[in-house]
Amino acid sequence: MPQTPHAPAPSPSSSPVSILGLGMMGGALAAAFLNTGHPVTVWNRSASKTGPLVAQGALPATTAAEAVAASPLVVLCLLTNDNVNELLAGLSEKQLAGRTLVNLTNGTPAQARALAARAEKLGARYLDGGIMAVPQMIGGPAAYVFYSGDEQAYETHRPTLAALGGTKWTGSDAGLAALNDLGLLTGMYGMFIGVVQALALVRTENIKAEEYAELLVPWITAMLGLVPEIARDLDSGQHLTDVSSLAVNQAAFPNFLTAFKEQGVSVELFEPFQALLDRSVEAGHAADGLSRLAEMLTVR
Amino acid sequence: MPQTPHAPAPSPSSSPVSILGLGMMGGALAAAFLNTGHPVTVWNRSASKTGPLVAQGALPATTAAEAVAASPLVVLCLLTNDNVNELLAGLSEKQLAGRTLVNLTNGTPAQARALAARAEKLGARYLDGGIMAVPQMIGGPAAYVFYSGDEQAYETHRPTLAALGGTKWTGSDAGLAALNDLGLLTGMYGMFIGVVQALALVRTENIKAEEYAELLVPWITAMLGLVPEIARDLDSGQHLTDVSSLAVNQAAFPNFLTAFKEQGVSVELFEPFQALLDRSVEAGHAADGLSRLAEMLTVR
Ligand SMILES: NC(=O)c1ccc[n+]([C@@H]2O[C@H](COP(=O)([O-])OP(=O)(O)OC[C@H]3O[C@@H](n4cnc5c(N)ncnc54)[C@H](OP(=O)(O)O)[C@@H]3O)[C@@H](O)[C@H]2O)c1
Ligand SMILES: NC(=O)c1ccc[n+]([C@@H]2O[C@H](COP(=O)([O-])OP(=O)(O)OC[C@H]3O[C@@H](n4cnc5c(N)ncnc54)[C@H](OP(=O)(O)O)[C@@H]3O)[C@@H](O)[C@H]2O)c1
Repeated sequence: MPQTPHAPAPSPSSSPVSILGLGMMGGALAAAFLNTGHPVTVWNRSASKTGPLVAQGALPATTAAEAVAASPLVVLCLLTNDNVNELLAGLSEKQLAGRTLVNLTNGTPAQARALAARAEKLGARYLDGGIMAVPQMIGGPAAYVFYSGDEQAYETHRPTLAALGGTKWTGSDAGLAALNDLGLLTGMYGMFIGVVQALALVRTENIKAEEYAELLVPWITAMLGLVPEIARDLDSGQHLTDVSSLAVNQAAFPNFLTAFKEQGVSVELFEPFQALLDRSVEAGHAADGLSRLAEMLTVR
Repeated sequence: MPQTPHAPAPSPSSSPVSILGLGMMGGALAAAFLNTGHPVTVWNRSASKTGPLVAQGALPATTAAEAVAASPLVVLCLLTNDNVNELLAGLSEKQLAGRTLVNLTNGTPAQARALAARAEKLGARYLDGGIMAVPQMIGGPAAYVFYSGDEQAYETHRPTLAALGGTKWTGSDAGLAALNDLGLLTGMYGMFIGVVQALALVRTENIKAEEYAELLVPWITAMLGLVPEIARDLDSGQHLTDVSSLAVNQAAFPNFLTAFKEQGVSVELFEPFQALLDRSVEAGHAADGLSRLAEMLTVR
């Protein structure tokens, strides 16, 4: 791109990025930066995973330190934050000073805050991130990433980070991206718990999972339509319902546990829900809706 | 409607229906039959609930027997099948002979089969049904009901039952409507478990549930897009994934339990999922996707 005398900010696609961790997700992140024209340096503990990315134009780094040296923006996507801490332990203040670390490894708010403090001590800027996508969605229109931590670093690198998908700022408390991320993933895990249990149940009568999924997905989608009202009831503390009371759910739920047992499906994932319904009704909330359960789960 | 000499089948809206049980759901069922022009007789244990329906044109019955006598088609919607059995115990063979009972009370496949046998003995036809709707959806385009049992009775009364929403036949084994119903509701309960846990989590940092629901609903909707692939993997027994392995889920899940604890949210609904992930990985399924969990839940 020709530079005018009053040079604009460098094209985001010219800013180099290093990616440490090339698993299913890290590999997809590196590919998205490559696809948007960024110079990309890659490192992975097992060197073999750099191959496909190098074929697409990435530069391989032999050590994590070499990868950190290659770009001011360093994206981490390891299995756990223990792995991230281990990796940081092998790097010196001199190597890290001035770098911006963007940690997209799944973790807790407390882990993120501790990493932010550690990075700051080492002279690096720290952004924590929560990826709302599976690898196949990265760079596509539905993917986005929550960020929190060093807001100036976020503003500086946002155009580059946009290669991965949407960018959502959650606040300068470094723990907030993880909190938002864990919340959405919690919703997702609940849904998947329901789906695998449902498929396990109907398969016992030789119903094909693929056919049943054609009923299950629209049904759960329709029931998601009740979530905004549940959320409003929770915010207002007004839990009375005309949809389906905790008493009705409590009365119906033994049917689920009985049917699971009779059909030879484990009740382990759903038994605690019966206990929660029982406790909620005993506490006097028989006429309330599901929003009450979020209150019941809040222990302080 | 003028009758031609070759009289067509009577307009479905002329067939009388009796509804026994006028809770949130039974009341909505009765209103839907009234709205489509059927002569409707209503009965409820607590007589006060007939009031609003009588105001809309329903005939009140003083006893269940009177309601059963009023129409060849008798719809039951009580809290549990224990209540249905209790109600049947108070009715004679003479009162029931020739009637079609449509039981829309939530129950198990085994309960439905036992009720079908009992009804047959009493000379009645039996249809079991599973309502895929909340009361507010009844009669609308998204509502439907699974039916199973006496297929001839189903064909006869299907035009009348269509007042409630779509009709889905699942088979002459009376238990199949309940199985299909419990399966979809299991998926729904999983989703709601995820939603109430997620809202409980983010509220600890003063995030408004209503705002968070605006992220949560589209996110779960997006993740529902993975369900058809999970179902196909389950049908094929080919569980290997390139999306997110059980090993990655197992490694991330302690972050959820830790964050719940740190934020003061109960872990009771999610702890069993960690145990299932651990067991699945230990059994050698680290590289598999979530479809493997449905296999792990199948105990025979
Ligand atoms: N997959 C998803 O759908 C998804 C979605 C959102 C977030 N995430 C998160 O993204 C992160 C990576 O997930 P993934 O799916 O890419 O997992 P993965 O395919 O299992 O990859 C794990 C990565 O971590 C590296 N690693 C593990 N232990 C390490 C250590 N001690 N030191 C250095 N590197 C280590 C692995 O290196 P080796 O190749 O040498 O083993 C590999 O690069 C996780 O925190 C996950 O929760 C994943
Ligand atoms: N609400 C929903 O979203 C929904 C969705 C699908 C299916 N269902 C199912 O529909 C059924 C009714 O649910 P609902 O929401 O209408 O519940 P509800 O509002 O609590 O009403 C329960 C009904 O059962 C009656 N009943 C309870 N015990 C009885 C007994 N021993 N003898 C006779 N009648 C008795 C009640 O009569 P009284 O008025 O005298 O107490 C009332 O008519 C349940 O099986 C439920 O699982 C509900």
